[in-house]
Amino acid sequence: MTQFKPACPLPAATGETVLLAHGGGGKLTRQLIENLFLPVFGCAALEARHDGARLQVNGARVAFSTDSYVVRPLVFPGGNIGDLAVNGTVNDLAMCGARPLYLSAGFILEEGLPMVTLRTVVASMRQCAERANVDLVTGDTKVVDRGKGDGIFINTAGIGIVETALEIEPASVRPGDSVVVSGSLGAHGVAILSVREGLEFESFIASDTAPLWEPVDALLQAGIELHCLRDLTRGGLSSALNEIAGAAGVGVTIDEASVPVSEPVRGACEILGLDPLYVANEGRFAAFLPAREAERSVERLRQFPICAGAACVGRVEADHAGTVSLNSRIGGRRVLDMLSGEQLPRIC
Amino acid sequence: MTQFKPACPLPAATGETVLLAHGGGGKLTRQLIENLFLPVFGCAALEARHDGARLQVNGARVAFSTDSYVVRPLVFPGGNIGDLAVNGTVNDLAMCGARPLYLSAGFILEEGLPMVTLRTVVASMRQCAERANVDLVTGDTKVVDRGKGDGIFINTAGIGIVETALEIEPASVRPGDSVVVSGSLGAHGVAILSVREGLEFESFIASDTAPLWEPVDALLQAGIELHCLRDLTRGGLSSALNEIAGAAGVGVTIDEASVPVSEPVRGACEILGLDPLYVANEGRFAAFLPAREAERSVERLRQFPICAGAACVGRVEADHAGTVSLNSRIGGRRVLDMLSGEQLPRIC
Repeated sequence: MTQFKPACPLPAATGETVLLAHGGGGKLTRQLIENLFLPVFGCAALEARHDGARLQVNGARVAFSTDSYVVRPLVFPGGNIGDLAVNGTVNDLAMCGARPLYLSAGFILEEGLPMVTLRTVVASMRQCAERANVDLVTGDTKVVDRGKGDGIFINTAGIGIVETALEIEPASVRPGDSVVVSGSLGAHGVAILSVREGLEFESFIASDTAPLWEPVDALLQAGIELHCLRDLTRGGLSSALNEIAGAAGVGVTIDEASVPVSEPVRGACEILGLDPLYVANEGRFAAFLPAREAERSVERLRQFPICAGAACVGRVEADHAGTVSLNSRIGGRRVLDMLSGEQLPRIC
Repeated sequence: MTQFKPACPLPAATGETVLLAHGGGGKLTRQLIENLFLPVFGCAALEARHDGARLQVNGARVAFSTDSYVVRPLVFPGGNIGDLAVNGTVNDLAMCGARPLYLSAGFILEEGLPMVTLRTVVASMRQCAERANVDLVTGDTKVVDRGKGDGIFINTAGIGIVETALEIEPASVRPGDSVVVSGSLGAHGVAILSVREGLEFESFIASDTAPLWEPVDALLQAGIELHCLRDLTRGGLSSALNEIAGAAGVGVTIDEASVPVSEPVRGACEILGLDPLYVANEGRFAAFLPAREAERSVERLRQFPICAGAACVGRVEADHAGTVSLNSRIGGRRVLDMLSGEQLPRIC
């Protein structure tokens, strides 16, 4: 492999080698998708820039999604890689407005992995699958030699069924929409980083990993006209909003003061030098919906413990298309950009 | 991780750590599935021991399958990891009797991977997808730090549609069935090993990687009553036959003299100390079908260049249930067991 190393702290946009930041969910990830994957694989489903593809299978509207999980460490406060692997793909389907039905699981194990670790992870996957009411129906296991992997990598793919007639996708977002966030932000990223850095905070901070179909379904059942949903994983709220703003060709403005962040997470972020708007979550989503339905949506969401912190955080505008703007606590206004480098590698 | 190392050359059946042979497609892979995955995930689809799951989605009969690819080296005579990733999952669907429709792709890249390698692999995936008439509709990319991966790992999952009314699965195999092999064996494994060992043979031996839905569909269209299909990947013909014999509760007998192996591959296997019956193929399958249709099936298959070597190699019997028996060239008869250790790690 080329030993090329960028001389500047921020990697050049068109590097000759893959950088950690290409997997960070920020600008370089987007460049990789736009410059390398889309030109080759380009199809309508991919170009919708959704969390998954919505397809027709024999007349049925089906959603199909995949994610690989490489989180480090494998076990962290509030969960392990198995929880992420099930909840993450369940959530990608839920963000397509699809009821998750079936998952596949592909394991890449490193030679020497203690069998007990694998058992723990697999048991968590089963629990999460039961909680999310999905069946793990097919799988595969590969083993790589010691030093060529990192314990366990898991890929899950999922199939869900779209029962709503709504077109839940970036293209449905309209100026005037409200942006609702399903709960308080940043716990997953802080939980991971606290283990990596060996830090202990006054309050125990556990990952927010959780399946999100139930709250999404509750909004649909309540007749809320959902325009778009996006889970707030790699790159956090700001990257998700930038993606939607770009794909929908609209501006998004959020009010910093209304973004829900718990006091322990806020404190931990200050110590760690993190901005909670960029920190990954594994059980949180943003919903774009008509402003008149924002309050009712927040109330409905708050009936779920995992959505207790739900709040309306901003709105969609016709101007400053493609960008996200932040009204700060102290009254200023600034552009909230995508992550440029890599804040927290291997967060999921 | 535990530094436990088995003291004997053949790993103990219930080791405390993951061994390379757990990914080899032989006995240890089967033990891992039976002792660890099935008890936890157990469901009808998994227990059918098929190459994929056959499911109902809104009334449609759908097949769903996944595989991860960790082949080393990434590029080899006749293909690269991208070809395997597309053809492999297309073939798992075809083995369920399903027309492949959609694929997902999850990449785990190692920091420092030359971008040109990724481009090559992705371009091959597109070509293979076009050739197999499937769409790559959803994807994901993760990056792991240098030394924690090995260039590129790819997972693909696939959705296919089952149009035949036949139940193509191990449980449909019957005593009296013939076993037809779709082409000559061993080229993929020999191609990989020749690069790893830096060997050159008199004849160029390229991997047999190819999509198999077209020949399977041709058999279905010809009205052949297919009972079961299995691709002959990790562990080769002998492991595939042992899996079917075990799952169907039947005996299988094959005649060594009728197993198609090309002269160059046979010669290379002798030099490398490999048994072509255990070597992985990436474009070959075995079909179990009524004996009266064996000849017609072989003729139909031979019309496809990738199936030019198709042959009837054996039969299913009621006795010696669960085992595979080999009538050797020199007239002896022996049990053809599953692979116990690991013959060729990371062959796919």
